[in-house]
Order: sequence, then C-alpha cells, then structure tokens
Amino acid sequence: MSTDTGPRGRRSGGREGRRSARLHAVAEKVPFITRTMTPLEVLSAEGLELVEHNAETILEQVGIDFRDPDALATLKAAGADVDGERVRFPRGMARSLVQATAPGEFVQHARNPANDVRIGGDATVFAPAYGSPFVRDLEGGRRYGTIEDFRNFVKLAYLSPYLHHSGGTVCEPVDLPVNKRHLDMVYAHMRLSDKPFMGSVTHPDRARDTVEMARVLFGADRLERDCVLLSLINANSPLVWDATMLGAARVYAEANQAVLMTPFILAGAMSPTTVAGTTTQTLAEALAGMAYVQLVRPGAPVVFGSFASSMSMQSGAPTFGTPEPALVLYVLAACARRLGVPFRSGGALTASKVPDAQAAYESANTMQPTLLAGVHFVLHTAGWLEGGLTMGYEKFVLDADQAGAWHAFARGVDLSPNGQALDAIMSNGPGQHYLGSAHTLANFESAFYRSSVADNNSFEQWELEGSQDAAARASAAWRRMLAGYEPPPIDEAVDEELREWVQRRKASFPDSNV
Amino acid sequence: MSTDTGPRGRRSGGREGRRSARLHAVAEKVPFITRTMTPLEVLSAEGLELVEHNAETILEQVGIDFRDPDALATLKAAGADVDGERVRFPRGMARSLVQATAPGEFVQHARNPANDVRIGGDATVFAPAYGSPFVRDLEGGRRYGTIEDFRNFVKLAYLSPYLHHSGGTVCEPVDLPVNKRHLDMVYAHMRLSDKPFMGSVTHPDRARDTVEMARVLFGADRLERDCVLLSLINANSPLVWDATMLGAARVYAEANQAVLMTPFILAGAMSPTTVAGTTTQTLAEALAGMAYVQLVRPGAPVVFGSFASSMSMQSGAPTFGTPEPALVLYVLAACARRLGVPFRSGGALTASKVPDAQAAYESANTMQPTLLAGVHFVLHTAGWLEGGLTMGYEKFVLDADQAGAWHAFARGVDLSPNGQALDAIMSNGPGQHYLGSAHTLANFESAFYRSSVADNNSFEQWELEGSQDAAARASAAWRRMLAGYEPPPIDEAVDEELREWVQRRKASFPDSNV
Repeated sequence: MSTDTGPRGRRSGGREGRRSARLHAVAEKVPFITRTMTPLEVLSAEGLELVEHNAETILEQVGIDFRDPDALATLKAAGADVDGERVRFPRGMARSLVQATAPGEFVQHARNPANDVRIGGDATVFAPAYGSPFVRDLEGGRRYGTIEDFRNFVKLAYLSPYLHHSGGTVCEPVDLPVNKRHLDMVYAHMRLSDKPFMGSVTHPDRARDTVEMARVLFGADRLERDCVLLSLINANSPLVWDATMLGAARVYAEANQAVLMTPFILAGAMSPTTVAGTTTQTLAEALAGMAYVQLVRPGAPVVFGSFASSMSMQSGAPTFGTPEPALVLYVLAACARRLGVPFRSGGALTASKVPDAQAAYESANTMQPTLLAGVHFVLHTAGWLEGGLTMGYEKFVLDADQAGAWHAFARGVDLSPNGQALDAIMSNGPGQHYLGSAHTLANFESAFYRSSVADNNSFEQWELEGSQDAAARASAAWRRMLAGYEPPPIDEAVDEELREWVQRRKASFPDSNV
Repeated sequence: MSTDTGPRGRRSGGREGRRSARLHAVAEKVPFITRTMTPLEVLSAEGLELVEHNAETILEQVGIDFRDPDALATLKAAGADVDGERVRFPRGMARSLVQATAPGEFVQHARNPANDVRIGGDATVFAPAYGSPFVRDLEGGRRYGTIEDFRNFVKLAYLSPYLHHSGGTVCEPVDLPVNKRHLDMVYAHMRLSDKPFMGSVTHPDRARDTVEMARVLFGADRLERDCVLLSLINANSPLVWDATMLGAARVYAEANQAVLMTPFILAGAMSPTTVAGTTTQTLAEALAGMAYVQLVRPGAPVVFGSFASSMSMQSGAPTFGTPEPALVLYVLAACARRLGVPFRSGGALTASKVPDAQAAYESANTMQPTLLAGVHFVLHTAGWLEGGLTMGYEKFVLDADQAGAWHAFARGVDLSPNGQALDAIMSNGPGQHYLGSAHTLANFESAFYRSSVADNNSFEQWELEGSQDAAARASAAWRRMLAGYEPPPIDEAVDEELREWVQRRKASFPDSNV
C-alpha cells in the first residue's frame, strides 16, 4: 500500500519516486499561474461606481426571485424585503454581507498537495470545459458523450501540465442514467486524477453525494477546515435563482465548500444588449447569490462568476469571442476586485463546430481578456466547441497548449542582469548574430515558450511531413497522451471505500433519466 | 471627367453620388480606429527607465554601424562620434534629436480625403501584410505571387471596410523585372484604391520614382505641406543600418514623407533571447535611425518601428504569436509613448502554412497586444502566413474580419443612459427575456459586431450547408469581393499622366532582376 495524498498523511511509498520522475519531465509545471501584471482596466473608477450604483438600484427596486423556500426564509430573517419569491435588498445590504465574511482568496485542496490551487489575488487557475452533451474528434466526428469520453478528458486534463484543475462535467456521460451518473463522474475525478475538481449541482441530493464522497477521500473532518470542492451554481437570468441551484449551493456552503455563483447570460436575450446593462444585471444577480451563500455559512468560500456571450441579432444564435463580451469581462473583473472576492469568467469559447481558424480566433479573443483582466478561476480553458454543446478532443489539445503560453506571458519581463542582457549586446557588437553567443547558449532552453502542436518548420519540411493542419497534429497528440496514461497512485483502502460507497448508493434507488 | 481626390480640388462629378451610396452600405466605416482605453503596461516606469538607460549605454559605448557615406557625414556633422562606419552617440543625443523635431503624430493623406489616416495618439491604422514572395489560396495552393495577385490584394484592401491603408508590397510580383516592378506596384495602389499607401524602398532610385509619381498624383507642391507616403525602412540587426535602406530613408525624409524606422528582429539570432535585451537593442537601433531622419530633415514624420519574433531553439525557425514577442511589443509601445513618437508593430503574424487553428491562435495572440498596447500603425493586419513568406487570400479575409471586431472593442463601454439600460432592466423584471423589449429592438442592429465569416448557426444548419470550415467560407468571400470590385473614380487626366510617366520611366533603362 502506498500513497502520496494529503489528508491521510505523507505515508509515501515506492511510488513516490516514480511520481517525482514523472513531474521532473515537465520542468515548468506549476500548480497555478501567478500573474505579475496589473489588470487592464477599460472603465474609470467613476464608471465602475455608476455600474455598482445601478446594480444596487436593481436589487433595491426590482429585486431578485429566489425560487426556494429555504433561501426566502434565510434572506427574510437577514432583513431583506421578501414578497412571494421576490427578494429586494436595501441598498448596500448584499454588498455588506459579502464583504463582511466572504474570503478574498482561498485554497482549493487536491488529494495531491502539490496540486492545491489558490483562488483569488494574483493567481489564475485553468480548468477544462464543462457541460457538453456531445464530443468530437477528427476521426469519429460528433457524437453523444459517454463515460469513456468523460474518463478520457479527466485523463487528458491530468496529463496536461498547464491545466491546474480536473474540472467538473467535462462532458455529459449520456450512456449512464441521469440520476446516477454524477457518482461515476465524481469517482473518475477522484481516482483518475489527483488535481482538484468540481462537484455535482444538478440536484441537492447529488451535491450531498459529492460531499459524502469527498469525506471518504479527504477524511470527514477535513472539510470543516479546508475547501476541497468547488462547484458551479448558475443563475437563471434575468434576476432569478432557481430551487435546484440554490439547494446545491446550500449543501456546499453548509459543508464549508466553495461555489461559483454565476449569472449565465446571452446578452440580448437574458440581459439588455449593451455592455453596461449586462454588467449591471450580472453584478446584481451575483451579489444576491453570494450574499445568500454568506448567510448560509458566513465565511464559506464563494466566487463571483460571470458567463456572458453576445448573440447574432439575425438568427438569435449565441456568438463567442466577440468584442462586447470581452468588455463585459474586463468590467466585471474590476467589479469583483472592488468587492474583494475571487472572479470566475472567460475560457476558450467559440461557436465553431470544428477546431478551425474561427474556433482559434474566438477562443484567443476570450482567453486574452481572461488573463489580462486577472480572472482567478477559468472554466472552459480547453476543449470547448459549438457554444459549449461539444467537447472536442483536438480542440482540447490546442487550447491546453495555449494555456502553456499564458504561463510564460504571466511571468512578465525579467529585469535581472541576465534578463537585461546588456553585457551580451555590448560584447556581441554590430552585424554579428547571437546564435552562438554565451548568453544565448546559457538561455536558449528556457528562453521561449515551446508549443507542442504548432508547426514552425519550413514549408518544404511541413509538406514532406504530410501538410498537416493544427487539428491533424492535435489528433495525434491526444491519442499519444491517452496511450501513455498511468493513473496517479491512491491509498488502496480509500479507493476501495470510495468504490463501495458508490456501489451502495447506486443500489439504494432505481435508475431514472430525470 | 470626374474626381473626388484631394489635392486637385473637390471637383466632384457624377460619380460622387455613386461613391456615397457605396460608402453608405458600410455604415460603420471609419478612416481609422480611435482608441478609448489606456494602453496596458507590463513594466513600471522604473523598469522602462532601466531599458532606456541600457539603450543609451549601447548607443554611447558600442554604437551603430551606418553603412552609408551620406549618413556618416550627416551624423558626424551633428556631433556623433564616427569611427569608420561605427557611429557612437553621446548619452541622450539621439533621444534629444528625435524629441526636438519629430512630430508626435501626423496625418497621412489619401487621394480620397475621406481616407486620410492619423498616425499617433489614440489612433490605430490597419494595413495589409507586406513583402511575401508567395501567395496561397484554397484551390490553387501555394505559388509565387504575380502582379495580378498584387492587384487583387490592393482591390481586397480597398474593399475591406476595416483596413484603413492600402499597404505596400502586398505580395512580390515576381513575374515582373526586379528593377521595374515598383512602378507597377505604386501605380496599382494609386489607381485601384483611394486609400493611403506605402512607397518602394528597395533602392534609393525606386524611392525617388515613388516620390515623383506621388507628385503627379497629389500635385508637386503638396508633398512639401503634407505627408502622402509612408515607407518601411528596416534595420539590419544587430546594430546596423545599411546603405539601401538609409538611402531610401533619406529620399523620403528630404521630400517630407514618413518612414517607419524598424529594427526587424528574430530574438535569439539578431538580439539576445530575452525580452528586456531585445527591447533594449531595438530601442537603441530605432533611436539611431530616427535621429538620422531628423537630421536629414528636421520635422519630417517618422515612426518608431519594431518587428520582433521568437525562434524555435530546436530548429532555429522563427515562431510567432508566442508570449515573449507580445511582452516586447508592450514594452516598446511604452518606450515610444515616453519618447513621444508614433509606434509601428504587431499584425496577424503566424508561422502556419495554412489558415488553420494555429494561424488564428498565433495571429490573435499578436493582434491583442497590438491593440491593447496602443500601436499606431499596424502592418501585416491581414493575409500573413508562413512567417511572412506567403500572402493568403483566405487568411486575408479572416484577418480583415478580425480587424472589424477591433473597431467595436476600441469604442469601449457606452455609459450613456441607453448604454446603462437601467430602465430596460427595471421594466423587464425577473424571468422575462429581452428579445422583444423596446430597448433590444432599438439597439439590436448595432449592438454586437457581426462577423462576416464566422458560422454561428446550429450544428444541423452548418452540416446542411456543407460542413464548411472558416477557410472554405473565406474562400467564397474573397471571390465574391473581387467579382464585385469597381475601381474608385480618378481624374482621367491625372491617370493618363501617371501612366505616361511610368511608361517613360520603364523605357529609360533596361530590365534587370537585381
């Protein structure tokens, strides 16, 4: 029996050495990005104050529907004005509740402590895409996702040095019954990876199952001290939090676990068409949701979430990577900083059906603001296609490579004497190349980010190698990765306990597809 | 006879109406982008001072080779320390020369005054890619460029509402003799477009030809008053300006025309591998070049240029869209602001051979810093493939569409009452979509940037339409554009004079391929 997981001690056995050797192969691997640059601001302080003022006006005068009796009782007891399902917040109330007790940053622990992630401050954490019913690969095309696909994406995220998090519903395993598939999903994250992961939110009972499984994996008392689960709670915009999501949020907050309170907005349909209008509504919704979480358990970790897309005003289809949602992202990241809570948004979003130029352009145009605005938790960093309907194997590899480039960018400019390279320039002189200079030889291995999928060869070499485009190269890459996959070590007793728990739970109620 | 060109007056004839109608169809068309946001800074003022200090140390102690007797004489007379071809500048001399007389911004005039561009300040001007010997399209593949390709790209840039400039060597017309092709290139820009354009720099005589043709088109006296030519002068890094480029720069500066003084650097080969080292060397080279231009003609418009790429340290191949050159770009844009001159850099750069995901990712990762750093003149905005060896028809269309998105982003956040949309949110209320709201109906037409090549349809619709990727859609787009091309009106007498001038000049010396 050997283990290197955290809560059960550091009883490292023979596998420890093997794990170090594996990590060593990925020299640059860090558990998350630490940004060195000041976030880009697109609005002045006065502009942000106006957005905040308007959000308070909405909370005060229109209010938010909370479609859950527990939430209504909690909010009423705290002094909100409750009328049926409508909850109006006296000006400043929601903000005060959040600022009083929500942590400015927190650590989500992984079963391998080397993979613990910090959420907030100057940290940025990358997680794979979430929630697609379909998967796609170059050979097989588009099809419904299965538990095998799910496991594949957990393995690929585990193997990707630049993804810090295992994510949650990396695809929907539609071959499993709706009311039990969360058990296989959570178990896959626990067993096939040792990175932090997300819990089920599709029913409060499924959130409870996630918490119980985490107690088995991490130790029952651990959850009171540490955050080991981070789960996605979406608003039902405009201005509604529904019972399922509120119930799941309550389960996690009561267990001291983190939730991403995320208005999911297709601007023009679920909010006004404008950037300022969409940010104002998002801020009001998120404030209300986060305030509720802090009432459930003051101090429980909570993340201000935003998912905003634009829409084609001809067809009503959602559109991604467009300039307006980028502006929304910059403004809301600033609002979160002013509020003092971590922020989740962005990702490699696209409406494209395939990993083509549209997909990459749109994804880059969302990932750039994601990093430059200083987003703390990035869902959908890798794999997203077709507005989130499809998880793409090749897209996953291409996006994960981009995630690597962000590690290099975020380090910023090295101004050490070696970085300045003044001696190198002085001693090199005019007209002489630097290829053989001592400075180049000392730095070349780590000087530039090395993409694993870009082709920088000559045209002739590229043609000789089959004229492959990026998608074809990515197809070979994920197959190679899966072929070389080895599961991370786990305490066998814990694994057995987890499997028995899942087995018992599955046997305790009949299968159903609702 | 009709015209709408500038210098020869506003003698508009019957074509004026047609032109207005055509412009009206592109509602958003503006002559250049006016940015509303503060540029992103990646270094503190102290960091920038260190780079500037080091650049002065290089200018003072190592110096720059000027491989041109005229330049050496001019610099010596101005007080530089000249030793053979080596020119050392007393600390602060080059900077002082530039700051004393170089304009902080200027206007480059087009023959259609509606297309005049401002270069500097909060303006950003997009020009197509420059200098490729090859062209590529989806059907024909990769082949040497011809004058027909050249004319096609001039037409496509003219037809693209989001490209502000006709560019220069949009591809090399290798079917024409080397020593005469500039005449056909310059004439194509003058006749097939009415946007501003660039001059020839491959020999001082060819620069003189460009100036003479501009005198025919704009009127001989006009050039003394106004900038109508902008030309690309590359350094021969490290630390060398060569005779051809210096000769061309002198011709343009003497004629009061603008030059982009651009160190072209493949970091690791032509500069040290580091970001700070590359920026320091670029700054030193550019300062020396710009100082020379100000000595040739104080007050002549000059642009601080930088082209920086990284390289694959395995193969030595240039790489694009990587994080390190993005950092170089941000730092040098800040250096140019501190110096007080316009800055040229960036573009839709990629090493990819085809317009695939690699091409788009790399291009976006260069265009994002280009805009966010506040670059004033952007060469290579559209068409660039394969490290600049190939001009791609489909890539051109995809990039030009992205250029459109930047117009929307640069406008920033509308905080007018309509932008705030507070009434719309207040009157809409929880749970009701906004699709039919008065605010949405009043705003939907201009709410979001509409891509002309992205496919946002459902998977089923996309499949029904042939499962085309972005490159296939772009292929149809440029063919449609060229089929609908109509040349802008020109004064027929001027056109005849131009054609006669070119004819005479061509007849005056034999063809040659050097």
